[in-house]
Amino acid sequence: MRTLSAFISSSTSFGHCFFHRLTLRHSHKTLTSSLAPCFRRHFTPTMAAPEDSLRKALADKQSEVENQGDQVRSLKASKAAKSEIDAAIEALNALKLQKASIEKDLQATLSSADGSVNREAFRQAVSNTLERRLFYIKSFNIYGGVAGLYDYGPPGCAVKSNVLAFWRQHFVLEENMLEVDCPCVTPEVVLKASGHVEKFTDLMVKDEKTGTCYRADHLLKDFCNDKLQKDLNIAAEKAKELKHVLAMLDDFSAEELGAKIKEYGIVSPDTKNPLSDPYPFNLMFQTSIGPSGLIPGYLRPETAQGIFVNFKDLYYYNGNKLPFAAAQIGQAFRNEISPRQGLLRVREFTLAEIEHFVDPEDKSHPKFSEVAELEFLMFPRELQMSGESAKAIQLDEAVAKGIVNNQTLGYFIGRVYLFLTRLGIDKKRLRFRQHLANEMAHYAADCWDAEIESSYGWIECVGIADRSAYDLRAHTEKSGEALVAHEKFPEPREVEVLVISPVKKEIGLAFKGSQKNVVEALESMKEKEAFALKADLESKGEVDFYVCTLGKNVSIKKNMVKISKEKKKEHQRVFTPSVIEPSFGIGRIIYCLYEHSYYTRASKAGNEQLNVFAFPSIVAPIKCTVFPLVQNQKYEDIAKDISKSLTVAGISHKIDITGTSIGKRYARTDELGVPFAITVDTTSSVTIRERDSKDQIRVDVKEAASVVKEVTEGLRSWADVWATFPHHSSASADE
Amino acid sequence: MRTLSAFISSSTSFGHCFFHRLTLRHSHKTLTSSLAPCFRRHFTPTMAAPEDSLRKALADKQSEVENQGDQVRSLKASKAAKSEIDAAIEALNALKLQKASIEKDLQATLSSADGSVNREAFRQAVSNTLERRLFYIKSFNIYGGVAGLYDYGPPGCAVKSNVLAFWRQHFVLEENMLEVDCPCVTPEVVLKASGHVEKFTDLMVKDEKTGTCYRADHLLKDFCNDKLQKDLNIAAEKAKELKHVLAMLDDFSAEELGAKIKEYGIVSPDTKNPLSDPYPFNLMFQTSIGPSGLIPGYLRPETAQGIFVNFKDLYYYNGNKLPFAAAQIGQAFRNEISPRQGLLRVREFTLAEIEHFVDPEDKSHPKFSEVAELEFLMFPRELQMSGESAKAIQLDEAVAKGIVNNQTLGYFIGRVYLFLTRLGIDKKRLRFRQHLANEMAHYAADCWDAEIESSYGWIECVGIADRSAYDLRAHTEKSGEALVAHEKFPEPREVEVLVISPVKKEIGLAFKGSQKNVVEALESMKEKEAFALKADLESKGEVDFYVCTLGKNVSIKKNMVKISKEKKKEHQRVFTPSVIEPSFGIGRIIYCLYEHSYYTRASKAGNEQLNVFAFPSIVAPIKCTVFPLVQNQKYEDIAKDISKSLTVAGISHKIDITGTSIGKRYARTDELGVPFAITVDTTSSVTIRERDSKDQIRVDVKEAASVVKEVTEGLRSWADVWATFPHHSSASADE
Repeated sequence: MRTLSAFISSSTSFGHCFFHRLTLRHSHKTLTSSLAPCFRRHFTPTMAAPEDSLRKALADKQSEVENQGDQVRSLKASKAAKSEIDAAIEALNALKLQKASIEKDLQATLSSADGSVNREAFRQAVSNTLERRLFYIKSFNIYGGVAGLYDYGPPGCAVKSNVLAFWRQHFVLEENMLEVDCPCVTPEVVLKASGHVEKFTDLMVKDEKTGTCYRADHLLKDFCNDKLQKDLNIAAEKAKELKHVLAMLDDFSAEELGAKIKEYGIVSPDTKNPLSDPYPFNLMFQTSIGPSGLIPGYLRPETAQGIFVNFKDLYYYNGNKLPFAAAQIGQAFRNEISPRQGLLRVREFTLAEIEHFVDPEDKSHPKFSEVAELEFLMFPRELQMSGESAKAIQLDEAVAKGIVNNQTLGYFIGRVYLFLTRLGIDKKRLRFRQHLANEMAHYAADCWDAEIESSYGWIECVGIADRSAYDLRAHTEKSGEALVAHEKFPEPREVEVLVISPVKKEIGLAFKGSQKNVVEALESMKEKEAFALKADLESKGEVDFYVCTLGKNVSIKKNMVKISKEKKKEHQRVFTPSVIEPSFGIGRIIYCLYEHSYYTRASKAGNEQLNVFAFPSIVAPIKCTVFPLVQNQKYEDIAKDISKSLTVAGISHKIDITGTSIGKRYARTDELGVPFAITVDTTSSVTIRERDSKDQIRVDVKEAASVVKEVTEGLRSWADVWATFPHHSSASADE
Repeated sequence: MRTLSAFISSSTSFGHCFFHRLTLRHSHKTLTSSLAPCFRRHFTPTMAAPEDSLRKALADKQSEVENQGDQVRSLKASKAAKSEIDAAIEALNALKLQKASIEKDLQATLSSADGSVNREAFRQAVSNTLERRLFYIKSFNIYGGVAGLYDYGPPGCAVKSNVLAFWRQHFVLEENMLEVDCPCVTPEVVLKASGHVEKFTDLMVKDEKTGTCYRADHLLKDFCNDKLQKDLNIAAEKAKELKHVLAMLDDFSAEELGAKIKEYGIVSPDTKNPLSDPYPFNLMFQTSIGPSGLIPGYLRPETAQGIFVNFKDLYYYNGNKLPFAAAQIGQAFRNEISPRQGLLRVREFTLAEIEHFVDPEDKSHPKFSEVAELEFLMFPRELQMSGESAKAIQLDEAVAKGIVNNQTLGYFIGRVYLFLTRLGIDKKRLRFRQHLANEMAHYAADCWDAEIESSYGWIECVGIADRSAYDLRAHTEKSGEALVAHEKFPEPREVEVLVISPVKKEIGLAFKGSQKNVVEALESMKEKEAFALKADLESKGEVDFYVCTLGKNVSIKKNMVKISKEKKKEHQRVFTPSVIEPSFGIGRIIYCLYEHSYYTRASKAGNEQLNVFAFPSIVAPIKCTVFPLVQNQKYEDIAKDISKSLTVAGISHKIDITGTSIGKRYARTDELGVPFAITVDTTSSVTIRERDSKDQIRVDVKEAASVVKEVTEGLRSWADVWATFPHHSSASADE
């Protein structure tokens, strides 16, 4: 069995540094640039040690070679004895051999650390199978395709619809979430409120002659990686600098990026022309709503905003009670500058998002105990900062120690873990990585990414963030509609409130046309400011007071305003709920699932490597195949009857009555990840074969469909079925 | 029970004339304008008769009133006897009363014919419930909303996902279709090939002062309808003319529409400003792909093109065999000029489309017999032309008589009928209407719409068209990729082929640099032209020959080309498949389903009308509710246990442990169309209530979840359950 680990000797972190697009909204530069950049997440200093010492040894050996070369030349010049010269040359050659050996070691270290050659071979093997069997297709291929757009072909489409159905069962149904479905076309005002119109950008440079566009950070990253991997003779100091640049990439401003590009002399990769300075490009697809051209709109970059703007209605629908969660599955769009990484970085993709609204003063979760004992790989920011690896932590411990901010966040981390592993994600290649301080928006309480290891490195597939009250507040402010919750007190509570009463008559006499501005400025004072003014007025009788809407000071007299604190009865607390948001990149999860499910095994004759996708039944695009063993009317009729029963039972299947050998037919469907095959080899009973073990049982014709239904729907395990029915062994079965 | 028919006295055709947007691609004006317009589909002349005679009677009575008035005046002028004048006045008053009575009759006739008042009351009642229970929400409501964009709230979203799941089961799984999933963002070249860039337009007029845009045909239609309904005194002739205009609306060119708007003096409805001439507005949302601004793109107006461009891969995936069908569910977008009709005419919507590829020489269907005996309302073009109504026809008869063009088309009509009626569409308000000659594109072989009657009239919800080879040919031509199928002959067949062999040496000598153009022009001759040239050359030795790529005649001599017919063996037939396309407007189907499922019934106290949606289980957003009869810890615990079992069984449900009266809780969930309610009223057994009959059975606590699972999944009918379990009757149950 050959899996990714057979292709890649080292399965540690690949040192790749992906720009988190999925949570761009959460962690965008412009929101965090004021925070001091620190260690970058995928930067693993432990790996640098052997590389650094080899680079140093190589540099030392190079000096030795140069010194010895000088010595040989000077011996020749001084016409020394031939034996002396020969000995010096021999020593030089020995040094050169030693240098070559260090070079070889360094090369090996570099390529094993980054494992790129093997990873690419593995990725190619997976995508060959995926493309040949139409799991995905380059969109509009007959017209040359469009970068970053892919179709799901029949098996890919079925996998996607299975993943989404399971998501609905696991989250929406189990948690009684309120699912909504909002349009992709979104008017500008909504995305202005959310900050996307201003801040949802990447930095771009243009080829100054052809106008071709590139992502500025990609060019700098490629330059550094290339230099580090291919130029063995750069000094250790230089290597350190380049690595530092890679680590800092996400934090560079346009100016800093531009300066580095100039400093390193980076030019257009296709033409070698000079490049423009970096400037921001908004990643939203723009359009216009209606015929007037006056309503600008965008394709939504995420589904979440549709939920936030509906908060009031959803809260009402939930009986005005917190907590509750709303969910949405739908398309989202990002007009990438130059998409790379195949199915992982695309211009249109399916998101599944949950917005769990909760009282900020109580983030406990009633069902936390159900996930508390789960233990899996977590990568808190402390471990990242100290250069350590992710480690297994039990969830209740993580919450108790404050590693995870609160129970509700912890509950969702646990549920996401269960979701991904039940889909077939390998738990050894799944980790939950906490955002570093400089990755998070200032308002976020805590943020964790479910990262899955693939041939592209660790990929962020789910973001789970406690976004506090940010989104609801932003829309409250922009729309003027109060998106708040109420907590009714069992008994009214007495509270002290600040009362500012401007005396309008006096103010009107004094300020005439500006009186409204003065009144508003007085009323908007906070408690501290108000009482300072009150004290000043009492001591001086008259003070200067700044009115921002007038842009100047006015003179306020004691008789113009009354300031006091009064006792009042309050019947409820009004507050903006916090939102905890698990956001799933469905396409990324599916791609990682393909890599984790793929393996090859030798054909029976041993002359071929056959591809298999080990999908769990819940994910498999087709649950079962039905084959007559040989072409024969009676077998065909039985196969068709079984097919009908499977259809009635709602089990997706494929019937293959071609005369192809049974071994070939198995191989074809193993490649689609079909878990079970029914082969009709007698008129009374049939065999059922399990894909991975290739084990076969013998079952009565009438029972075949229901047995397959039970095992594919998880009502019964294969082990149980295997223990119940007679086994069938056929030497020729897989030939 | 009050349903639509209680609101509307007449349930006949409403005389509304909708512009078929769903099949715009199929039937667009510019493709059909050369065909003589004839009767329009919803024009029902039979209804005009009483209206016409009343209009005539009214006009006659008006003359009588005027004559009598004249007489009164002349009697007064001639100072006639008071008794004579009084008698004349009495006669005048009698005539005026008669006139008023005719006016009243006419008014009644007009409003009962079009039923608008009652229909609107019914529609308002349905949408009040739909909006209050968040079946749908105006999108971006806190920002004032955007016309033509709606969200599905929690129950609406669940209904939609149930409808789509059933669609997948009924079509994709049952027919082994190849489902694909393509992007919404589509590059221009694809939509140029399909004709959308040039022809997917509506005619628009602009308010010349404010720039507000209107659909030209809407303004004209509103004017005519208004005049007909509100102006009782227009002459019968004028009424006939206005009705003719309504009937012709879809066939008017920009010039004709403009002329009518001028003739009737139609102005901007909001400002009374003058209007521009009508001009075409493309209904696709435009955008730009990538950062360069050089790749124009659109949001797809339908999902079908994604399937057509993938034909080659899908044909290969299907083992290079015909027939096969591909399917796609996804968002489509149409930038309507001024959306009306609520959920029926929106700017973003979900389509589910099937493209069934078939050999044009064999359109039989192996499973036709399974639907052959279905009988339902069909409305062939002959009945429409002769002003008759739709009538029940058995499907096999329709195909045998050639009313439906072929078996495959008939098969899909039958399958669509089953799909819609199983969802809960009332079969008495469902008809299949054939497109008239002037509605169909010239290439289409036949086209039927599944129309559902709603308060807006008969609404096209599914289009089922035999589009022949048009789409695949269009993309073959534009992309240069041959989208064809092959039929391998069992034995090679001998055929005669035309062979044109230019003698390159002679042509090279004669034409030098232009020789390639001449050779290509000779080789591209069709048989007739080639043999005419051959005959000319044999008789004259030299002839003038037009080379289009040179734009001039050249002189061809007899020794420059050999033309003959030769026998050749052919091993296969290469052809472009025909495509039969059922295309489902999911949102429209759901809206009609809401109207067909809605009814009201009196509360037990009789003081209230309660709303009910009679959704079948397959559609119901929530399958079951769980209530403890009274607030009590033991009952609550049992309710929670049952809720858990339902979750495990995958049954969506709602648990309500509030202290609200059980009657109110039933009423709340009847409004959501929840078919079953489990009420915990003892610790050992519970009751299960069926929504429409309000019948209750008593079931053991442990059995409750599985009984509900069986009835909601259709494994067991309510009648069967009713016959099995003890009945429970509670006088207070619904209070």
